[in-house]
Amino acid sequence: MSAPTAILQMICPDQPGLVRELSGWVAANGGNIVHADHHSDQGAGLFLSRIEWQLEGFGLPREAICPTARALAERLDGAYRVNFSDYRPAVAIFVSKQDHALLDLLWRVRSGELPMRVPLVIANHADLEPIAAQFGASFAYLPVSAANREEAEARQLELLAEHQIELVILAKYMQVLTPRFLATFDSPDAFHRVINIHHSFLPAFQGAQPYHRAWERGVKLIGATAHYVTEELDGGPIIAQSTVAVGHRDEVADLIRMGRDCERLALARAVRLHLRRQVMVYRGRTAVFE
Amino acid sequence: MSAPTAILQMICPDQPGLVRELSGWVAANGGNIVHADHHSDQGAGLFLSRIEWQLEGFGLPREAICPTARALAERLDGAYRVNFSDYRPAVAIFVSKQDHALLDLLWRVRSGELPMRVPLVIANHADLEPIAAQFGASFAYLPVSAANREEAEARQLELLAEHQIELVILAKYMQVLTPRFLATFDSPDAFHRVINIHHSFLPAFQGAQPYHRAWERGVKLIGATAHYVTEELDGGPIIAQSTVAVGHRDEVADLIRMGRDCERLALARAVRLHLRRQVMVYRGRTAVFE
Amino acid sequence: MSAPTAILQMICPDQPGLVRELSGWVAANGGNIVHADHHSDQGAGLFLSRIEWQLEGFGLPREAICPTARALAERLDGAYRVNFSDYRPAVAIFVSKQDHALLDLLWRVRSGELPMRVPLVIANHADLEPIAAQFGASFAYLPVSAANREEAEARQLELLAEHQIELVILAKYMQVLTPRFLATFDSPDAFHRVINIHHSFLPAFQGAQPYHRAWERGVKLIGATAHYVTEELDGGPIIAQSTVAVGHRDEVADLIRMGRDCERLALARAVRLHLRRQVMVYRGRTAVFE
Amino acid sequence: MSAPTAILQMICPDQPGLVRELSGWVAANGGNIVHADHHSDQGAGLFLSRIEWQLEGFGLPREAICPTARALAERLDGAYRVNFSDYRPAVAIFVSKQDHALLDLLWRVRSGELPMRVPLVIANHADLEPIAAQFGASFAYLPVSAANREEAEARQLELLAEHQIELVILAKYMQVLTPRFLATFDSPDAFHRVINIHHSFLPAFQGAQPYHRAWERGVKLIGATAHYVTEELDGGPIIAQSTVAVGHRDEVADLIRMGRDCERLALARAVRLHLRRQVMVYRGRTAVFE
Repeated sequence: MSAPTAILQMICPDQPGLVRELSGWVAANGGNIVHADHHSDQGAGLFLSRIEWQLEGFGLPREAICPTARALAERLDGAYRVNFSDYRPAVAIFVSKQDHALLDLLWRVRSGELPMRVPLVIANHADLEPIAAQFGASFAYLPVSAANREEAEARQLELLAEHQIELVILAKYMQVLTPRFLATFDSPDAFHRVINIHHSFLPAFQGAQPYHRAWERGVKLIGATAHYVTEELDGGPIIAQSTVAVGHRDEVADLIRMGRDCERLALARAVRLHLRRQVMVYRGRTAVFE
Repeated sequence: MSAPTAILQMICPDQPGLVRELSGWVAANGGNIVHADHHSDQGAGLFLSRIEWQLEGFGLPREAICPTARALAERLDGAYRVNFSDYRPAVAIFVSKQDHALLDLLWRVRSGELPMRVPLVIANHADLEPIAAQFGASFAYLPVSAANREEAEARQLELLAEHQIELVILAKYMQVLTPRFLATFDSPDAFHRVINIHHSFLPAFQGAQPYHRAWERGVKLIGATAHYVTEELDGGPIIAQSTVAVGHRDEVADLIRMGRDCERLALARAVRLHLRRQVMVYRGRTAVFE
Repeated sequence: MSAPTAILQMICPDQPGLVRELSGWVAANGGNIVHADHHSDQGAGLFLSRIEWQLEGFGLPREAICPTARALAERLDGAYRVNFSDYRPAVAIFVSKQDHALLDLLWRVRSGELPMRVPLVIANHADLEPIAAQFGASFAYLPVSAANREEAEARQLELLAEHQIELVILAKYMQVLTPRFLATFDSPDAFHRVINIHHSFLPAFQGAQPYHRAWERGVKLIGATAHYVTEELDGGPIIAQSTVAVGHRDEVADLIRMGRDCERLALARAVRLHLRRQVMVYRGRTAVFE
Repeated sequence: MSAPTAILQMICPDQPGLVRELSGWVAANGGNIVHADHHSDQGAGLFLSRIEWQLEGFGLPREAICPTARALAERLDGAYRVNFSDYRPAVAIFVSKQDHALLDLLWRVRSGELPMRVPLVIANHADLEPIAAQFGASFAYLPVSAANREEAEARQLELLAEHQIELVILAKYMQVLTPRFLATFDSPDAFHRVINIHHSFLPAFQGAQPYHRAWERGVKLIGATAHYVTEELDGGPIIAQSTVAVGHRDEVADLIRMGRDCERLALARAVRLHLRRQVMVYRGRTAVFE
């Protein structure tokens, strides 16, 4: 609907003149910047930048932008990504038995909220096949156990490659990915590629059965956390969190029910931020440019 | 301003007919119930009740209500409290160097939000003496260290007895009370008497420096938790929690600043609920009757 | 899943002894009360009550509860409703072109969050027929215009009668119901039967295009309001409201997108409260017993 | 505590190259940008920018920055402001009888949250004189009525001039300022100088007694709105809003009590944003650069 834009994300050692350097590069090529945001982390001496400009009238063709940005990044000793607002990356959603997060994501794709395609749903239970079918996604039923995890992940990685998947979303997958999986699929720098939704406001209630433990502790709010997946369980950089108030009348089943809304909201928000390239990772945390 | 009421809190083993029994007792004495709330915890087989009725026209004089309620509680094998809405208990506030929680409580007392008196402020630093003076409270400066903790607490307990204190509020006191202190001052059953404000959304970031650790972890929300103090550090029954969204631009100093508002709100809410006898403790958690 | 309960809602002139009277009636028949809540509106001299008790072991059979309650209500000069927690009333959802509210309700019915059946979807556009079909609901396409409104509503009322509909939900129906429709279908007392979701935090932005007007006004939060429908446009008793923060970068399209989540949450909450008989109307407002 | 910075705010017609132009001007003088944010309003063809850079090492002395920025603004046909982070402007607080907003602001000044001085409190009732005295502010008691409004405002303007006041905060002043007052004191462009706190989530409940009207309407949330004052009553650009949930048990007095917290939070947030030059006004609305 809106005119297509290019988005440059850059992370590099901080030094004076970087905003001018980056905006100057865009302007020198006739680009009209529609959004520019930056952050300096003084403790780490890092500079993070996100610049978005209109493609119409820009002096460089799309295919030339990436190499030029690479040269810029090399000169600044930084990492970078270039993206276009009208691009729809292929995304795989990993699920188990619960349908709410999957359905919510697929509905948001259909409604235009999430600029992505979902050609592939991977599941360790067969339950959600009809939902994948209904939204035109392949459904790969790959039961995972301690015994076959290596093999199952190898098959998952094949499927990801086959469908040219650029982002994996764990939508209540309830399984831990191995370091090996991450080493193969994930990106090692500021631009992670696996998002998980955990059903607590991390770092509270890491690990299994957070709602049961929240009930036991008697907390007055529960929450959900969308984060990038790293080797550390529930320890990856947090993208979005949401909470909801609970009371003494709420049983574990109520917490699970109310938590579903938190999970849907935090996950949808995180995925949208990721797809619009509004998230960058540094020092185990995220900058979110809104 | 409003007509005075009596409030009965009761916790006892669950059995059919308890609502009728309690409301019947009030009605049989001509009491007009203005609020009645109950909760059954089926896992523990417990019944919790709070009944509030107008004193005007009630058949029993104030001094006869408590003994009658005690007989009722004994018959039901329960614990109980009776309170009157126009009663203003004496409360001691324990502080260290930070003034915001103390000031907020004292202002709310003055404005009529908190039905209590504050004759005594106890501090392990001298900084806040002028504030206590300004609101007419005695200020007891009792430095506490590992070496003199026992002695200091003995003096604190003397002061509490002297001022007939019924509730202790730790308003950023930054010290741990010993089991011995609690054994002497606190009530062992459903009606605790020491409230603390912790500067995180528990159980996340228990212990020291929660804002620093929240910053390190990169959470997208911070919070505060008001809870009853028990022997377990930051593990007592939670009364109220509040949170606020933070972002990557917020430094630790910003978290501390924003957290102050969370702390004030959660603490004020918890104290008001406690004073209006809307809180009961069971199974390490609270029922909050609003 | 949980054992079935009976729920009595009663609204009557206030007088002493009502809590005992109602709880006594339940207890006299051997009922174990699992939840009891009451409210006295002193300005209007009204008493509102909701009592829920276990059917197992209750002395009266289901079919005898309602007549007995009616006699009680007559004696108290009040209005009442009796409901059973395992009952699933037939509900009709009215829609236009937007799918999110309809889908969300149907998902929540399927997941067990909303104790109701949806045999009928009525629409003034044909777009959402596939969704109705997919969830097994009849889809009645009845275009409405100024010219045929009377006729269309007559047909709607026929369909409601045919499917024995007990609740109508306007899920972004974008049409006003006539007084005549309400006079026929709605209940005139404390127990309304038509719920609407309006896309603003009422009373702000009543009427058409609230998101456009919210953007124009430059508000920092937008919201949604679920309310019972009365003859006064967007003026009926409010059941639930939700809000979300917005900023200067959010265009009208963003407000619409973010508002969809508010609408889904407020509507789902209101419908659940209604179905669990937690809502009563008095003086143009609701008491919500949670 | 942190090293002092300069802040340039600029609003001008949009055109390509503006980010480069502004950041280039800073960089050309050796400035290290610590924060830069921009917004293009495409409907109005406007560009808004806020750039903050370290003064240490900057090539221009402080007194030369403003004239240079003026030349830049003239060339871009825009309006601008230059500010320094270590500057503490003189602020006057207008009050009536309620103390909570005044006290909260003064506490926040003392705690370092709000970079300003408060040499002057103006009141139309004498009640709050002790508070002004306690924080070292002059207290001007100027009763205002329909009969003497012109005269009283003339005296107010004299006092503002005398104390070199740069910002007026109406902290529950409960009086309307005349167009004449605004014409004299306020700034006519993007940088208004009078902030009011209104006790509703505008545009709901504009005008008098919003809490009473909120209670009458039966809303499920109440709120507060901090906004710049313009000639249109409660119609000025909104800076911050906050809300809190209410229920059927809350009487008007409870709404007033709970609203005080909303008012304090929204007002403190707005004043801090204003003082840090994070707010700019365009088209009757604000951009808030955080």
